[in-house]
Amino acid sequence: MAMTLLFISETDRTDWWQSELSRASPGLEVRAWPDIGAPADIDYALVWKPRPGELAKLPNLKAIFSLGAGVDHIFADPDLPEGVPVTRIVDANLTAGMSEYVLLHTLRYHRNQPVFDRQQRDHVWDMRMSEMRQAYETSVGVLGLGEIGSDAAVKLSALGFSVAGWSRTQKSMHGVECYAGEAEFQAFLARTRILVCLLPLTPATAGILNAAAFASMPRGGYLINAGRGGHLVEDDLIPALDSGQLAGATLDVFAQEPLPPGHPFWDHPAITVTPHNASITDPRSVAAQVAENIRRQRAGEPLLNLVDPEAKY
Amino acid sequence: MAMTLLFISETDRTDWWQSELSRASPGLEVRAWPDIGAPADIDYALVWKPRPGELAKLPNLKAIFSLGAGVDHIFADPDLPEGVPVTRIVDANLTAGMSEYVLLHTLRYHRNQPVFDRQQRDHVWDMRMSEMRQAYETSVGVLGLGEIGSDAAVKLSALGFSVAGWSRTQKSMHGVECYAGEAEFQAFLARTRILVCLLPLTPATAGILNAAAFASMPRGGYLINAGRGGHLVEDDLIPALDSGQLAGATLDVFAQEPLPPGHPFWDHPAITVTPHNASITDPRSVAAQVAENIRRQRAGEPLLNLVDPEAKY
Repeated sequence: MAMTLLFISETDRTDWWQSELSRASPGLEVRAWPDIGAPADIDYALVWKPRPGELAKLPNLKAIFSLGAGVDHIFADPDLPEGVPVTRIVDANLTAGMSEYVLLHTLRYHRNQPVFDRQQRDHVWDMRMSEMRQAYETSVGVLGLGEIGSDAAVKLSALGFSVAGWSRTQKSMHGVECYAGEAEFQAFLARTRILVCLLPLTPATAGILNAAAFASMPRGGYLINAGRGGHLVEDDLIPALDSGQLAGATLDVFAQEPLPPGHPFWDHPAITVTPHNASITDPRSVAAQVAENIRRQRAGEPLLNLVDPEAKY
Repeated sequence: MAMTLLFISETDRTDWWQSELSRASPGLEVRAWPDIGAPADIDYALVWKPRPGELAKLPNLKAIFSLGAGVDHIFADPDLPEGVPVTRIVDANLTAGMSEYVLLHTLRYHRNQPVFDRQQRDHVWDMRMSEMRQAYETSVGVLGLGEIGSDAAVKLSALGFSVAGWSRTQKSMHGVECYAGEAEFQAFLARTRILVCLLPLTPATAGILNAAAFASMPRGGYLINAGRGGHLVEDDLIPALDSGQLAGATLDVFAQEPLPPGHPFWDHPAITVTPHNASITDPRSVAAQVAENIRRQRAGEPLLNLVDPEAKY
């Protein structure tokens, strides 16, 4: 029997995904939302931020595949069909892209590049010798030590940064000082100059980047948020920057995306905005994962990268 | 007999160097140019860009120590005393700092960060999905495979970039495609999207970054020059950028430093200027090297990191 997959994304390149999925799963019919045809035909959904209620319309849905590493965009749907397994993407290219973003923006702050950008605008030549640090003098704290966070932490450590990580459960990693749970959150923040958020968004992590967290960091620190917009209490950021508690913030994710044109983050001199592309799911490597999970579902085998519906990540 | 060292630099922090040198070499008298006292007292000179003729005034000079990895600033002096050994700095911190600079600016171009900076100014949210590349799709070419160039090449390779290196003599490095000599220069350029210059400045490398070199690269490439200003034919850069042959250039070094306030590089939208601080010699680690070379000179042992006066690097 032919199987049918529904692709739902308003930001990804549908044509590229369709061609890669067809190559990876010969015989799979791929439909692109909103042209779903008969809802009862749909066996699988590959989704990014599906509109609430859309998945509930599919009576024969056998699995929901997230187009990203995170699945908060799926669990945000109050009408999400119960009992349908949800998988997320774990992909070396996706992970590598995220680490590139973290390295780029960590190095940018570590090396005071925003200061040199301003100096260039003003035609000022000032080496700022007294502000140059060795990497071991810059402490970076990574929130989240899953596949993505641990890759970033290891790569930062390889460059000589003083790296700590914080996760829900205790981890152990070579070259990374590991903190865990609420009890160790303050100590983690107190030693962190550059705070990098790579957490999944869950009820337990929503709003974790707030005024109290910034106040626990050494004065003049930096925030890099490549997790989700919901991790940051947006109203707390500009006061922390304007008081000097934070010296800068780089944000890839926002409460509302695209970031509205009138949002104050766009023009704040200490904020760098990128359009939620810290890492992009590459159809060339991920279509094969989708094909494998379809094969497994049909064969009654356990799915890869299955999400725990309780923990929601 | 007490020994005396003359510190010559118009840009380094003299007080910091004096205190670190005194700590590393107890009993060493350290004088700071221009307060040299009696020229005949001076046994050693630790120098950055000494003014021509200054070293020739020191009749008892036993060794000249460069404050940087390069020694072109010493050999530029037509009155350089003959027969006095010259050493340069080889230091893990200096090398690591240079690699940080290369990684930062390579990642910045690889990830199109200048485009996102412009989009932020214009409040534009555009993920530019079709321009996102995996690291293996970005070819980086490193000119110079000495201590500094090879460290940068290995770290770029570890992040997954497609890395080649070019040097005067043939090298062999894991994960780096090695080209050597004039005969292989074109082939090296033809495969290089981001060209990184970390060469020593010698008569053989002066002006190597010129219109012909840019024309040999694939259209839309990038230049990162952390070597010396003399490597770049400055008049060739803006035409290459304005024609689109190069998409951007990051320059840490210039024919004239500080870069004159009226120089066209400051305001060119595709040029990033940093004030020759890609890497800074750290007195804490380097004072001990100077002390060791003083000990060796007095004991008649060979000096560390001695420069070949013929090759001049």
